[in-house]
Amino acid sequence: MSRHPVVDGATRILGIVGDPIAQVRAPEVWTGLFHLHGLNLLCLPYHVAPTDLPAFFAGMRRIRNLAGMIVTIPHKPASVDLVDALTERARIVRSVNFIGIRTDGSWLGDIVDGIGFVENLKMSDADPAGRRTLLVGTGGVGTAIAFALAEAGVSDLVLHDRDTARSASLAERLTALGWPVRAGAPDPDGFELVVNASPAGMKDGDPLPVDAARIAPGSIVADVIVHETELLRRAAAIGCRTIDGTGMMDHQLATMAAHLGLGAHDFSAATARRVAAAVRG
Amino acid sequence: MSRHPVVDGATRILGIVGDPIAQVRAPEVWTGLFHLHGLNLLCLPYHVAPTDLPAFFAGMRRIRNLAGMIVTIPHKPASVDLVDALTERARIVRSVNFIGIRTDGSWLGDIVDGIGFVENLKMSDADPAGRRTLLVGTGGVGTAIAFALAEAGVSDLVLHDRDTARSASLAERLTALGWPVRAGAPDPDGFELVVNASPAGMKDGDPLPVDAARIAPGSIVADVIVHETELLRRAAAIGCRTIDGTGMMDHQLATMAAHLGLGAHDFSAATARRVAAAVRG
Repeated sequence: MSRHPVVDGATRILGIVGDPIAQVRAPEVWTGLFHLHGLNLLCLPYHVAPTDLPAFFAGMRRIRNLAGMIVTIPHKPASVDLVDALTERARIVRSVNFIGIRTDGSWLGDIVDGIGFVENLKMSDADPAGRRTLLVGTGGVGTAIAFALAEAGVSDLVLHDRDTARSASLAERLTALGWPVRAGAPDPDGFELVVNASPAGMKDGDPLPVDAARIAPGSIVADVIVHETELLRRAAAIGCRTIDGTGMMDHQLATMAAHLGLGAHDFSAATARRVAAAVRG
Repeated sequence: MSRHPVVDGATRILGIVGDPIAQVRAPEVWTGLFHLHGLNLLCLPYHVAPTDLPAFFAGMRRIRNLAGMIVTIPHKPASVDLVDALTERARIVRSVNFIGIRTDGSWLGDIVDGIGFVENLKMSDADPAGRRTLLVGTGGVGTAIAFALAEAGVSDLVLHDRDTARSASLAERLTALGWPVRAGAPDPDGFELVVNASPAGMKDGDPLPVDAARIAPGSIVADVIVHETELLRRAAAIGCRTIDGTGMMDHQLATMAAHLGLGAHDFSAATARRVAAAVRG
């Protein structure tokens, strides 16, 4: 970075709330981007336990120099009931990972991790539009991704979760919006895009989320997990294009920046990566 | 400064709450000192209106990475009733300008601006101990200074305020602690140390807080106002040593740092000034 971060009496705050919090990358990346653009803003971590979230938010609402709030694990579902309004996707997904502050001071909850996932596919030359898609895992992140994939125009979206009631309920909500979504088995045969949004693969020895032998060669296989999973290794071995979860967060920044009224500045994933690399020096 | 400030998921926060807030110097000075010492702490401004203070504090209490809170105008008196315990001086002065967080999570209110004022006198080779002292102005800051002067061992302390009931009440509280304090007229004749803690002199054309013609040559004249006031100019003209208010804040830092558990690091006024100069480039 070319200059020292600004911290003075006029500094505005973008919070990120989670529990735990020490592992998050957002404070470094956002603060680096703010300084790159000469903005007097900092991204600060707030370590808050689940039972304390309502009182914490009530307090943060009183801060006139709060610019917005990123919400991370485990606070995303609870935040739905603690904001004043929701975007359509946050309402359907029932999860909030960003709170924008509107001009009247009210809080607008949004969920943009699905958007980040889809944007990362597009930037990886794997636009999901028109593709028959299987999505495994419909927890918080999987639900957000399902919405974003449906919105991006996949031709057919099959959802699977070990908790079949959960995937069935999500399929129903997305179908009600007019999208071609149904619950089904985790069989990748016949799909052009296979997405793992389940935790399977986080640890060595985890069972595969789908039967890798039935993945169609030439399809695209994407995973939300940030390292190369066994699923991705097997898919690559049969000639599939593979995309891991590392780009998903970086591709959310621009949408969050728009909520902050900073849409005119460059918050692209490429610039975020450049800043993150510089911070780590 | 030799390195970039740290902002990451493990960053802890020293807040400063006020209304307005943009003018405060604390975020620059503290953050510069934290980075000088390689500490992963930032000092952040919180702009909070008076009616919002209780909810703001309730929210801040839920933040596990909050290190402490500096309190500035207009929140010092109200904070007395919003902490769990008070130092003796905060209880007597009825004002809080620093909140320390004890190991059990409870909030301890302290008032250290009087200490900063007295420490500045000492470092200016003007130790108040044993001096007959006149203090004019017993508002928030004046009350804190009166306590600190009495504690520092002035031989006789006369308090004056335009609101005579206010200075009389304070004199009573300090006398009850066994100190030689009384309310009286703003006549500097016979005093070795004359202190202005009233707003008189902030603007050109303000009346003098005391009759300058009656100041004893050779006495020490100190002012809380940060520029050279007419009082200080007149006093200097008759050979008095004069001390303005600029050093008062810098000399509070070490006491606040002790509350933060950082007593082993250098938070001296001299180092603070060096950091502040570096921040301004």
